[in-house]
Amino acid sequence: MRVELPGGVALGPGKAALLEAIGEAGSIAAAGRRLRMSYKRAWGLVEALNADFPTPLVESSRGGAAQGGAHLTERGEAVLARYRAMEAKAVAAIAADLAALADLARRDVSHGT
Amino acid sequence: MRVELPGGVALGPGKAALLEAIGEAGSIAAAGRRLRMSYKRAWGLVEALNADFPTPLVESSRGGAAQGGAHLTERGEAVLARYRAMEAKAVAAIAADLAALADLARRDVSHGT
Repeated sequence: MRVELPGGVALGPGKAALLEAIGEAGSIAAAGRRLRMSYKRAWGLVEALNADFPTPLVESSRGGAAQGGAHLTERGEAVLARYRAMEAKAVAAIAADLAALADLARRDVSHGT
Repeated sequence: MRVELPGGVALGPGKAALLEAIGEAGSIAAAGRRLRMSYKRAWGLVEALNADFPTPLVESSRGGAAQGGAHLTERGEAVLARYRAMEAKAVAAIAADLAALADLARRDVSHGT
């Protein structure tokens, strides 16, 4: 789901998946590959996320032993966890109505051709 | 919110708004104008909706006294009501997490420039 936060900050499935993949893969490039996202796009999204929040969500180290490595900051972990919690609650909250909508869309196979 | 129902049926804010506007305005053309949607697009969405469900959601009468008139069928009313109920429950379910995310995005003005 896509949400708009005050200040024009938008969060959706793409950014959440990227944060999650960076946390798991330990690098922006690897996270991008995992999501079949270009390196340029992955970096662009990280830069946008970092600029949107008061402190960065992703920290990268471009040199030294951890060259190319990246990790989620405490705020990055918190944002991702809240987003996932929100998503899970939304899914649970709409389950009954979604099932009812699916019933309304269902063609009754017992009376089909 | 946008949901996918079994059978590849997609429902989102645009189609819901169109159903609602048709129910209120009593014609597809008037509903389209209200939503600043082209006549062609409004008709296309209605045709897609009607094809997606086992019985039509919108009935139009192109001739006679009710020329150009359209109304929601019982199924159309049911789909719209379920969609709106679902949306309301999702909004309520995510309120707390959304507020927490907004806090994470907030720049603390008391320490600002």
